[in-house]
Formats: sequence, structure tokens, C-alpha cells
Amino acid sequence: MDKNIPYKIYLGEEELPRQWYNVRADMKIKPAPLLNPATKQPVTLEEMSKIFCTELARQELDNENAYIDIPAEILDFYKMYRPAPLVRAYFLEKALDTPAKIYYKFEGNNTSGSHKLNSAIAQAYYAKKQGLKGVTTETGAGQWGTALSMACSYFGLDCKVYMVKVSYEQKPFRREVMRTYGADVTPSPSDTTKVGREILKKFPGTTGSLGCAISEAVEKAVTSEGYRYVLGSVLSQVLLHQSVIGLEAMAACDKFDIKPDIIIGCAGGGSNLGGLISPFMGRKLRGEADYRFIAVEPASCPSLTRGRYAYDFCDTGMVCPLSKMYTLGSSFIPSANHAGGLRYHGMSSVLSELYDEGLIEARSVEQTSVFEAATQFARIEGTLPAPESSHAIRAAIDEALKCKETGEEKTILFGLTGTGYFDMTAYQKFNDGNMSDYIPTDDELEKSLSQLPDIN
Amino acid sequence: MDKNIPYKIYLGEEELPRQWYNVRADMKIKPAPLLNPATKQPVTLEEMSKIFCTELARQELDNENAYIDIPAEILDFYKMYRPAPLVRAYFLEKALDTPAKIYYKFEGNNTSGSHKLNSAIAQAYYAKKQGLKGVTTETGAGQWGTALSMACSYFGLDCKVYMVKVSYEQKPFRREVMRTYGADVTPSPSDTTKVGREILKKFPGTTGSLGCAISEAVEKAVTSEGYRYVLGSVLSQVLLHQSVIGLEAMAACDKFDIKPDIIIGCAGGGSNLGGLISPFMGRKLRGEADYRFIAVEPASCPSLTRGRYAYDFCDTGMVCPLSKMYTLGSSFIPSANHAGGLRYHGMSSVLSELYDEGLIEARSVEQTSVFEAATQFARIEGTLPAPESSHAIRAAIDEALKCKETGEEKTILFGLTGTGYFDMTAYQKFNDGNMSDYIPTDDELEKSLSQLPDIN
Repeated sequence: MDKNIPYKIYLGEEELPRQWYNVRADMKIKPAPLLNPATKQPVTLEEMSKIFCTELARQELDNENAYIDIPAEILDFYKMYRPAPLVRAYFLEKALDTPAKIYYKFEGNNTSGSHKLNSAIAQAYYAKKQGLKGVTTETGAGQWGTALSMACSYFGLDCKVYMVKVSYEQKPFRREVMRTYGADVTPSPSDTTKVGREILKKFPGTTGSLGCAISEAVEKAVTSEGYRYVLGSVLSQVLLHQSVIGLEAMAACDKFDIKPDIIIGCAGGGSNLGGLISPFMGRKLRGEADYRFIAVEPASCPSLTRGRYAYDFCDTGMVCPLSKMYTLGSSFIPSANHAGGLRYHGMSSVLSELYDEGLIEARSVEQTSVFEAATQFARIEGTLPAPESSHAIRAAIDEALKCKETGEEKTILFGLTGTGYFDMTAYQKFNDGNMSDYIPTDDELEKSLSQLPDIN
Repeated sequence: MDKNIPYKIYLGEEELPRQWYNVRADMKIKPAPLLNPATKQPVTLEEMSKIFCTELARQELDNENAYIDIPAEILDFYKMYRPAPLVRAYFLEKALDTPAKIYYKFEGNNTSGSHKLNSAIAQAYYAKKQGLKGVTTETGAGQWGTALSMACSYFGLDCKVYMVKVSYEQKPFRREVMRTYGADVTPSPSDTTKVGREILKKFPGTTGSLGCAISEAVEKAVTSEGYRYVLGSVLSQVLLHQSVIGLEAMAACDKFDIKPDIIIGCAGGGSNLGGLISPFMGRKLRGEADYRFIAVEPASCPSLTRGRYAYDFCDTGMVCPLSKMYTLGSSFIPSANHAGGLRYHGMSSVLSELYDEGLIEARSVEQTSVFEAATQFARIEGTLPAPESSHAIRAAIDEALKCKETGEEKTILFGLTGTGYFDMTAYQKFNDGNMSDYIPTDDELEKSLSQLPDIN
């Protein structure tokens, strides 16, 4: 154990970042603009403001300002659970017998159980400031819905969550946390929207999909006076808010003279990975330092490693703007991978551009090996990780084991985005030996990719 | 907001207590000795060592040493999740519009979700040090079983948990966490013990009870080579280990010149309350300071407020030593109160003696009002509390509201022992308006109290 570095590095409240960092400002090639699906032209602030809060739409379109002040009300809320600890994985290092130094930034120390709260509170704040009554959203696995419920409860905003029906029924505890925070949770498809009623008529007995839930949430927002729609990942505004993860991690590293060689995060829509790496990427883009960045995605939903960099719909319902990103096609239906938060066909346009330029690496890992890493980590480091986060753990362990072979003393930093307390059904499957892996065939991917919009 | 006091006070690793504090050393009247139920004589170290690890038996009988060194291996483990934060409930104070200053010591920031881990790791350590193969225990609500599974996994000990069958079936997620940490979880009653087989024969289809699970765990321990039985509350050794809660809280208070007037904890077997108040009680007993201590118990299981101070069995199966304590009678069956951790007929003998001398106050609260406080707290302070902990929240809010009436600026400290992530069934009942209160009648209590052992 290194005497100079404690197990858990907690920054003081006064060291909490006062500004978010917008990596787009330092990118030489900016992410391609969002397009209006009807006109195929870049969406304007005005168009966007019909769906999103105006200030958030502004942040979405801002490729210029590197730093954006975090409002005092959001800082106050952040202080309830931030700064989040940077943990030195001494026990894991010892168990792996590796010369590598392993650190993880832990974002699970709050009731939503993940990093999602960082953006939820920001989005709720801007909605409140705009004088709105409430917001609508969809949730699949439930982490985003929980975080948004907490944020809305704090600001006294109404929160309408469309929860994919199969999750609503199979994850009653997630649903109850949202209800405890006063959210109105509706299983989707529902009879509360036109699109929901149409789907129910066409497919009676359907258990729903994320695409349908998004469509219902968007319809509810645009047809209700004083409501807007909010989204927990993929968007550039979300990456901006999540930069607080990376800023804190970087401040802690700088304070203790820790120099990461490799920075690893799981990648679904990109909110956690983008947030963690943004400030480090900024240094790399400005030529101040160099790092290897690794995005880890499930082999069952491999948008970076097997997708195409093209314009596509962000939602299955095809109501949102078109985004240029690594995608498997918006009609791609991911298999039942238990990391619900990573079952997304596309990827943040910011990360997609950085990956296309070779500034980020990507790899895919299979579910069973992810749960092996999760269980190993839980037993050694004492924290039961979320399946999503465990993709990053898998890659971190693999890199540490490579160091053992080569004898290199690399410093590895990964994002531990959350806890797995609401994912015990998946752990049970693994504990019972009933977990299987699934990798889509080339034909399957070709089929969904062939349905990309004709703008490409 | 007080500029000098942050939202969360985190002590540094170097400020972690190096010794546990044994309040018995400062008590003028010592707790009555445990008695051997066969001989009615005080149990000896030798007798006790057949069931418990020898060092733990020694701690159980030690009324003299005020400070006991925490072994380095336990300190290392503590560093994974300790020091635990002392939080200033600024948001709650504001919402209640009270002049009172409210603090809580939060013990939920670890995967077991409660303070139970503080003693579990100590008990596992001494078992390992004694060269044992493993330990056995019972669990009802599941917090203790989870904590012990984590501790045993860390030291490579076998862990056999007898889980009350109804909990085993209704709380599959708690069970899976234990299995993920490698524990062998058996629904009780089972056919793995003689007592279990007898009960199954007598009551086919029974869903079990804590008393039966204890009996099975004890039988398994004494009939298996290299095993001992461990228990998560009630015992004086457990209060000793849990004193780390109070020592940290006191160090944080001293560091920031916080002087609590009232210290509040929920009380089931007494492990959390005893741990939190021990060092403060030490100061009071030595005449160095004065505090009001309030034990909060469920109205459905009111051992302090309506029980009798008498010798009784610690377990329903009547296999453990007799303890002098406030008890409702070991045959008392608590109603289905959702705070499973507080459904215990007796109370720590240390706390019982202190209460009998008037050094601690006690009050009982009803379930519905506890969940009202829990929900209020979750929404305002951002942490979803365990039902057990919420008994303390209820009393803290009530005291803060009294201050609002009188205008007094009292400082209130309470123990937030854990999170409610595995208690969402109870929250659901509350959210649906289906929660009811139950208070045992005098006749019911008289019936179970009439069956106290004839030594009294």
C-alpha cells in the first residue's frame, strides 16, 4: 500500500468543480450537426426548444464554449453526494498480483445508484428555471427514471416516466423508488398517448420497447402545456453535465500526482464514458498529455466495434432529430443482455467523432465474462457493481493482467458508474449458471443497417 | 448554511479510530451476567467458547477494559467504507423551518447497506484467526446475512446462513447478494439439521421463524468440525464493535465543535443504538458532558417501553444463554412490521441496564408515521432510508419540530443505519396506502411475559 495515497480520495466540498467542461470546444473536427428529419437541415434552437428546455437546447448546440458555469442551485444538490470518491483498488491489485495501479471513480454513492443524477438534476433545474410544470421521459432499466424522479422531487417539478412495460412488471422495486420520489410511472405502451393507443391496438399484449416509450414521452411533452421532454444519455448536453465526473477525477489525480495511462469506461449511449474522459481528452486534444481511452461495449450490442458511422434516428420511433453516430440501425433490437443501460443502437455523436478520428479505442465483451469480473470485484473490493459498470471492470482487469505479463507498471483508471442492487435477477442467472452469451450475426446487423435513413 | 460545517464531514483515514470503546468499563452497575440455562450459573469462557469464537467470548465477558485495539486486518477492511460520513441535514432543517441543527451519521454507504458490516468483519476475523473453517448464522430481514457473507468472502471463510423461509422466498434479491459473496443460504426450517427436520415433521408447510433459524444455525455450528456460531446484534461484543460508529461521530463533532444535545437511534437488538451512543454515554458516565439519549422502537414490538426487565432466552428456540434484559418474552411473535431488523423480543443487556438506570429514554412509534418520515427524508435529503433507520428519523423530526415551537436551537444527532433498497415491498405498501399499524394488546404481552423462565 502506497502511504501517500489513501484507499478513498475524497475531495473537499470547496474542490467541487464550479464549471462543466465542453470537450466540443477543443475538438478540431466538431461532431456533425443534428438534422431535422423532415427538412434534412440542421435543427435550429427554435425547433429544438419545442421538445427540450431552451437552455438545454442551447447547450446541445454549443460547440464553442469550453467552460459553462454550474448554477449555484445545482452545486448545492451536488454537495449532497459529491465529490464522489476516487478509489485506489489496492485489494484488486493484490488479488491480481499485478504491477499495475488501478483506480476507479465511484458514482454509485447516491440513491439513484448511478452517475445519471449528475445530468438529471441539471435538466430538472433548467426546466424549473424556465417556469415549466414538469418533464416527461422514458426509462428502460430504470436508473435514469430514478435519477430524474429524485431531481424533480427536489425542485418540486412534476415527473412523468414512461417505463417499458416488461421492465415495469419485472422491476417493481425500481418503479417503487420512482413512486416514492413522487413520479408518475406509466407502463408503456399505454392509453395516455395517441401513439400508445395505436400500438396497443396493433399489438394487443405487447410488452413494449424503449422506442415506443420514447415516442410516448415525446408526444406527452409536446401536447402538454408547460412540459418538455428530457433524455438521460446520447445527447451532447448530457456529456457536458457528466463532465463533472472527469473533472473531479482529474482534480484528484492532479492532487496526488497520479498519471493515468489508460482510462476505461463502459459505453451505451456514452454519457458516463464521455463524462469521465472529457477533461482528459481536452488535455490530449490540446497536446498537454497523452492517454489511451477504451470504450467497452457488450458484444450483444456492438455499435462502435461493428456499427457504421452514419446519420440515424436516435429513437426507434423516429421522432427525434437525426444524429451522425456509430449505429447498428435504429431498428436493431438488442438481445436480452442484462446490462439494460447499454442496450442502445447508437452512440453519442461526440464520442463517435472522437472514435472515428482514432482518439478512442473500443472493444466488446461478452456477458458471462462481464459477470465473472463483477463477482470477482464484489468479493475483493466490497462493492457490488452494476452490470453496465462491470464492462469497464472486465477491461480494467484484462489490462492489469497484461501488465502482469509484461511487468509494466501502468496506471489504469476506470469508471464505476453504479451499484447492482436492482440487478439481482441477472446475478441470480449468473449464480445459477444459466447465463448465456449472444453475438449478433453479420446478417442481422446488415439487415438493420440497410434501413438507415436515405440521407447517408 | 453554516460556512464552517460542510454538508458531509468525512474524516481522513488517519482519523479512523484505532480502538473500540467498551462502555461496560465505565458503567457503575454492570450488566447482569449471562446465565447457563441448565445450571442457572454465569456462563464461563469455556462454555461460551463451544458456541462462539474464543476471542469473541472473551470480549463478551469483558466488563473491565475500556479500550480494545482494533486489529490491523480489520482496520484495512474498515478503510474500504469508513470513516462513514457525518452529514448536516441542511435541507431537512430548511424544509422543517426549525432552529434545531440536525446531523446524521450515515452507515449505508457499503454493499451490505447497513452498519452490520462493522461487527461482521470483526467476527469473521477472529474466526479466521482461530483457524476455523467457517461460521453459521441466521438472518431474517437479510442485512446481517449480507454483511457476514461479505466479511467471510474477504477472509476466505465458509459462511452458512439459515434464512427464515418466508424471507428466503419473498426477498430473493437479498439472498442473491449473499450467494454472490459465496455464502451457502438455506431456507429454514430445513432438513440439514435435527431441529429443522423435527419442526418440518411437526409443522409441514411452515414458513419458519427467526427462533427456528437460530436453533438450526447453532446446531450446525456445534455439530460441524471447525465452525462457530455468530450473531449480529444483542450481544455485548457486537456493541463493542459498533462503537466505531460513535467514536467516529464523536471525533467529527469534536473536530467541528458540534455539541449534540440529543442523540437518537432506532432500537431492535440494540447494536446500532449502542454503537452510536457508547462513547457519548462514556462521557456522561464520567461526568464530562451531558446528553439526552433516545431509543426509538416500533409500537408493534415495544420491548423497552412495555417490556419487563428480567432474565429471558435470547432466542425463541431457548438454546442460547439467559440474558437479563428488557423483554416481551421469548415466545412473543411480533406482527408483520416491515422493519424486520427491529422485530426482536429482547434488547441488549447493556442498553437494558442503562435504560433501567434512567440514563436513556425510550419511545415507540407506529409504522405509518415512520414511513411518512422516511418518504419525507428521502425526498428532501436524497437518501432512501431503511425502515429501521426511519424510526430514528421520525423521532429526530419530532424533536426538531418541538424546537420550532419553543424556538430552542438544539443540536440533534441521529443514526441513519442503512438504505432501503431491498425494502421496496414495504414502500410499495405505503405508496399504495395499504400500510396498517398494529399495537399488541396488554393481554397479548401479559401472555408472553407469563412464560419467562422461572429464575426471575
